[in-house]
Amino acid sequence: MKNILKRCLKNPLIKPEDMPMDCFAVYNGGAVKVGNEYIVMLRVENSSRRQFAWVARSQDGINFEPDPQPVRFTAEDMDSYNKNACKSWYDPRINALEGKYYITYAASSENGCRIGLGKTNDFKTVEHVSFPLHVSNRNAVLFPEKINGKYLMLHRPLSSRGDGNIWISDSADFQYWGNTELLVKCRSGLWDSLKIGAGPPPIKTNAGWLVIIHAVSGTCAGHYYTVGTLLLDLDNPYRVIGKSPGCIMRPEAEYEQTGFVPNVIFPTGAILESDQTLKIYYGAADNYQCLAEAHLEDLLATIKS
Amino acid sequence: MKNILKRCLKNPLIKPEDMPMDCFAVYNGGAVKVGNEYIVMLRVENSSRRQFAWVARSQDGINFEPDPQPVRFTAEDMDSYNKNACKSWYDPRINALEGKYYITYAASSENGCRIGLGKTNDFKTVEHVSFPLHVSNRNAVLFPEKINGKYLMLHRPLSSRGDGNIWISDSADFQYWGNTELLVKCRSGLWDSLKIGAGPPPIKTNAGWLVIIHAVSGTCAGHYYTVGTLLLDLDNPYRVIGKSPGCIMRPEAEYEQTGFVPNVIFPTGAILESDQTLKIYYGAADNYQCLAEAHLEDLLATIKS
Repeated sequence: MKNILKRCLKNPLIKPEDMPMDCFAVYNGGAVKVGNEYIVMLRVENSSRRQFAWVARSQDGINFEPDPQPVRFTAEDMDSYNKNACKSWYDPRINALEGKYYITYAASSENGCRIGLGKTNDFKTVEHVSFPLHVSNRNAVLFPEKINGKYLMLHRPLSSRGDGNIWISDSADFQYWGNTELLVKCRSGLWDSLKIGAGPPPIKTNAGWLVIIHAVSGTCAGHYYTVGTLLLDLDNPYRVIGKSPGCIMRPEAEYEQTGFVPNVIFPTGAILESDQTLKIYYGAADNYQCLAEAHLEDLLATIKS
Repeated sequence: MKNILKRCLKNPLIKPEDMPMDCFAVYNGGAVKVGNEYIVMLRVENSSRRQFAWVARSQDGINFEPDPQPVRFTAEDMDSYNKNACKSWYDPRINALEGKYYITYAASSENGCRIGLGKTNDFKTVEHVSFPLHVSNRNAVLFPEKINGKYLMLHRPLSSRGDGNIWISDSADFQYWGNTELLVKCRSGLWDSLKIGAGPPPIKTNAGWLVIIHAVSGTCAGHYYTVGTLLLDLDNPYRVIGKSPGCIMRPEAEYEQTGFVPNVIFPTGAILESDQTLKIYYGAADNYQCLAEAHLEDLLATIKS
């Protein structure tokens, strides 16, 4: 396993003690660069394990300053919003699309977990757009542009056998979703045997849509989370070009191997710099917000058809 | 529990030995009356437990003659059809809608179970229409008419906690589904504690849409399946008017209490006769096809708001 991802020397970038609240864990932040500002929308838990989405901002992508308050989720009809999903939100992704910013997140209640989709201008308030599809579904990301006139989404429904595979759907309006197909599935006995899902939103490259993925296998101690790559056809993302045959990053740092949930690395944000370096923001041990970097060319070279 | 459902004295109507094949079980048949002909589309398993949909026909709704061959499922692109769902189909419902017949069924493969939607003219071949929504979803039925310009569907996704609740979605075209909301949920400790789902397609009455439902609770021997009722607003089926507070039918006959899966009754077909008697076709013990009858008025009287 060639080490093409370089961990940031300042990792963990954000730790619980950095947050302006009773923080138990801060991790799995969606990321975007707006002008010169780097923005991460973090998953934060307080000591009662209540979930928050919380934004932190930076001028260099490394040193982040958290907002004083968590993100507010609003809907025209809050009763319906709360009834239909949402007692809790986690693992927000920031999806830049047509000059707007859409937040996809896990919308969770005692009725299960489904995808929440909202939009934001200021990263302080997320206005509800829809709950695509139904319960037992999460880890959704949007493609950054329409393709063949449709919005596209990768997502990870849970089968009744407990498998989590990457599926793809499209929509003309964010409300009605269809063409829902299985795209990439787990492979028994390998690094991606239990779950496989999109990390950050797909990144457009000349070779295709590059998707940084998480993949989970089992050990006698529980789930083991690693990072890999996936490449989809530019014109038809329903066609898989290739995938990294194995993981390209595994939990190796102390802050990844120990913490709230040991041996988890979970990529959720990616920012492509002008020199073609990709900043990959990831959660470590469900406890810390971290960053690793790789050259786009090196990531594409991991793909095998 | 007042006994408003009368079991047919000829129960089980159809037994494995009645089928023109190596039959292990025959049950859970969708039902419709076309002209003077009663048609049931049965779930059939052979001795290797391979699943078939198999039609049987009758002039009186009681004495059925099975077709010589199982139903054929066809799609324009069979490779895609098989890839995206379907190694196996079960629990077909027959939905009469706009003068056409739509079959909703559990489309199952090693990737999980989702809803299959097809249409038929002759009840010999079912032509693929779509796979609405995604995996971990089944027990779908369509409303017999468009409401507010949309097709409506009840379905039962499975939460990651194993709950199966009744959800509702709408669509303009059978391909794209949205407005997906939780409609009726399980209630801990009661007759509907584990799963609750639609049986046959909703029946239009002056009081509202009557839905014959199945509800599952747990015992130390496993799942216990009963039958109940649900009433939805005619103009807005997203509004629940009421529900039977308890089950209105439980496994009591020998062919319900013993068989492949003891203590299961599972309604999947309903035909309203001109005298307002409702014929309810149901599977017994995952082994036999049965019939019970009730007066519509008596069924509506079971509803409490």
